[in-house]
Amino acid sequence: MSIGENTQIRLAKRPQGVPGADVWDITTSAVEEPEAGEVLIEASYLSLDPAMRGWMNEGKSYIEPVGIGDVMRALGVGKVIKSRAEGLNEGDFVVGPIGIQRFATLPANQVDKVDPTLVPLERYLGVLGMPGMTAYFCLLDVGQPKEGETVVISGAAGAVGSIAGQIAKIKGCRVVGIAGGPEKCHQVTEDYGFDACIDYKNESVAQGLKEHCPQGIDVYFDNVGGEILDDVLRRINKNARIAICGAISQYNAMEAVKGPSNYLSLLVNRARMEGFVVFDHRHRYREAAKEMAGWMAEGKLKAREHIVEGLETFPDRLLMLFRGENMGKLVLKP
Amino acid sequence: MSIGENTQIRLAKRPQGVPGADVWDITTSAVEEPEAGEVLIEASYLSLDPAMRGWMNEGKSYIEPVGIGDVMRALGVGKVIKSRAEGLNEGDFVVGPIGIQRFATLPANQVDKVDPTLVPLERYLGVLGMPGMTAYFCLLDVGQPKEGETVVISGAAGAVGSIAGQIAKIKGCRVVGIAGGPEKCHQVTEDYGFDACIDYKNESVAQGLKEHCPQGIDVYFDNVGGEILDDVLRRINKNARIAICGAISQYNAMEAVKGPSNYLSLLVNRARMEGFVVFDHRHRYREAAKEMAGWMAEGKLKAREHIVEGLETFPDRLLMLFRGENMGKLVLKP
Repeated sequence: MSIGENTQIRLAKRPQGVPGADVWDITTSAVEEPEAGEVLIEASYLSLDPAMRGWMNEGKSYIEPVGIGDVMRALGVGKVIKSRAEGLNEGDFVVGPIGIQRFATLPANQVDKVDPTLVPLERYLGVLGMPGMTAYFCLLDVGQPKEGETVVISGAAGAVGSIAGQIAKIKGCRVVGIAGGPEKCHQVTEDYGFDACIDYKNESVAQGLKEHCPQGIDVYFDNVGGEILDDVLRRINKNARIAICGAISQYNAMEAVKGPSNYLSLLVNRARMEGFVVFDHRHRYREAAKEMAGWMAEGKLKAREHIVEGLETFPDRLLMLFRGENMGKLVLKP
Repeated sequence: MSIGENTQIRLAKRPQGVPGADVWDITTSAVEEPEAGEVLIEASYLSLDPAMRGWMNEGKSYIEPVGIGDVMRALGVGKVIKSRAEGLNEGDFVVGPIGIQRFATLPANQVDKVDPTLVPLERYLGVLGMPGMTAYFCLLDVGQPKEGETVVISGAAGAVGSIAGQIAKIKGCRVVGIAGGPEKCHQVTEDYGFDACIDYKNESVAQGLKEHCPQGIDVYFDNVGGEILDDVLRRINKNARIAICGAISQYNAMEAVKGPSNYLSLLVNRARMEGFVVFDHRHRYREAAKEMAGWMAEGKLKAREHIVEGLETFPDRLLMLFRGENMGKLVLKP
């Protein structure tokens, strides 16, 4: 079988601030034949995530940085087109660390088989993928919402926030989202069923929190950091939990990250701020996926993917996340 | 019995920044006779604490602010000189919210009887009082140190820090203190038995942490906030616990408090920062006091009080805490 050339997007240098087109190289090469125990995958969808920005920086983090000259790291879902591994056959679909490229040759133990007839393929990168697992474990394990409590979620129209908010509703909480622009806020309340949504681009977040959280804030699921975290800290309740899931407002910061000036509210309120990395919960992904699939089947949990096309458009598509242009989980169809 | 006049220090106005002499009024009045259920107490020692600065501010906190014109709130230990309450007799010694004054008339249920033959009286304001309880519960409940872990403690020569560090040593941890000046650092390592002490006035804290915490930091017991908290965040381990006990560097801040710029280290390390208020643990004070008295008897826990004299000197004595001039628990003998 002739499968032609592979095209890859590689990290050419470390970005300063917002990553411009100059930090990427587009390369082509012959597709690598799989060796024993490996499979050759044709990418169907690639996952674009805010966390990618962190992987581009040098230095110690929760995961090794992407090396200069390496194919950009990305999860993806794709079709096995050649297999030299037991248990995986041509035509199977799998998720795994495909990277930003058309074809990937990977050890079979790095991929998981998925069922394309159960949900649309791209959904394995969303609600049944990393964003869904992040929402599920970060909300339930770190946030620990209890029935009747008030939960605030930033990035509420995004891949993670929209799922976290719906799970908090399932758990019987009052849920207030924060998102940018009337279209996203409409989606957050109408499609995802949040009780309210604050449009940070057009209203005062401090004022909105006062209005929509009359009982104070018990759980904050933070995807953005920055000023909004400070606004929330001003209104937390005793024993509040702040789950630090991300800080997209700070990922491209050229100067020092803005620390939360109101952090002493943690002291006064005996509250907790805790960081979260989804990979720590890998052994429980299956359990979470099963429960979320159940909620989807019951119509309690809605997922939305935002599909963009063209492998070569990756450098600009990635920036949609930081410009707040995606509605739901952003995936790239190569 | 004629007991003459009472002298009180009252809050005249809310301070901006460091509280100057002008925020206080010294007043005299006739001693109030106790009514049924009350006792009249002559103050022996009054507790001076960093938390007092917070009580002087307007606005919501974990405790009501001291009202303008009110006697400054303070814990104290004193002698009952007149009793109209069952179970308390003239000559008994008690601890309670005496305030900065020579005599206090209090309901008997607001005070606790103490034994002056067991330990020196002033110790009931230190290791067996609020600072001791703070060290015990904040370290053990929030910090949760495990044998072999590295614990860092700021304000290490202070009333709370010195006790917290000794308890961490009892629990089998490597303990590194941070204090100001060679005299305090000497005390921290020689008297209190910490493994090392960083002199923040004369060395780089970042460099000191690197040198003395080769295995990283598992628990940080923070009494000071500010830059040091940021230095620590840079070196925390996975699943580290940061107990926010205080932030003395920020209590007199005229501008916004400095938030910890490196707070995203919490995310990368799945670490936790949690606030603490000692009053929440009131129901367990007796248990803690008993255990700490046992450690003192075994010679494993040393306490030191720094006694200053003269009720009228209060306005300046309080500032010793913020200038870092006290060695151990600061108490005022009126």
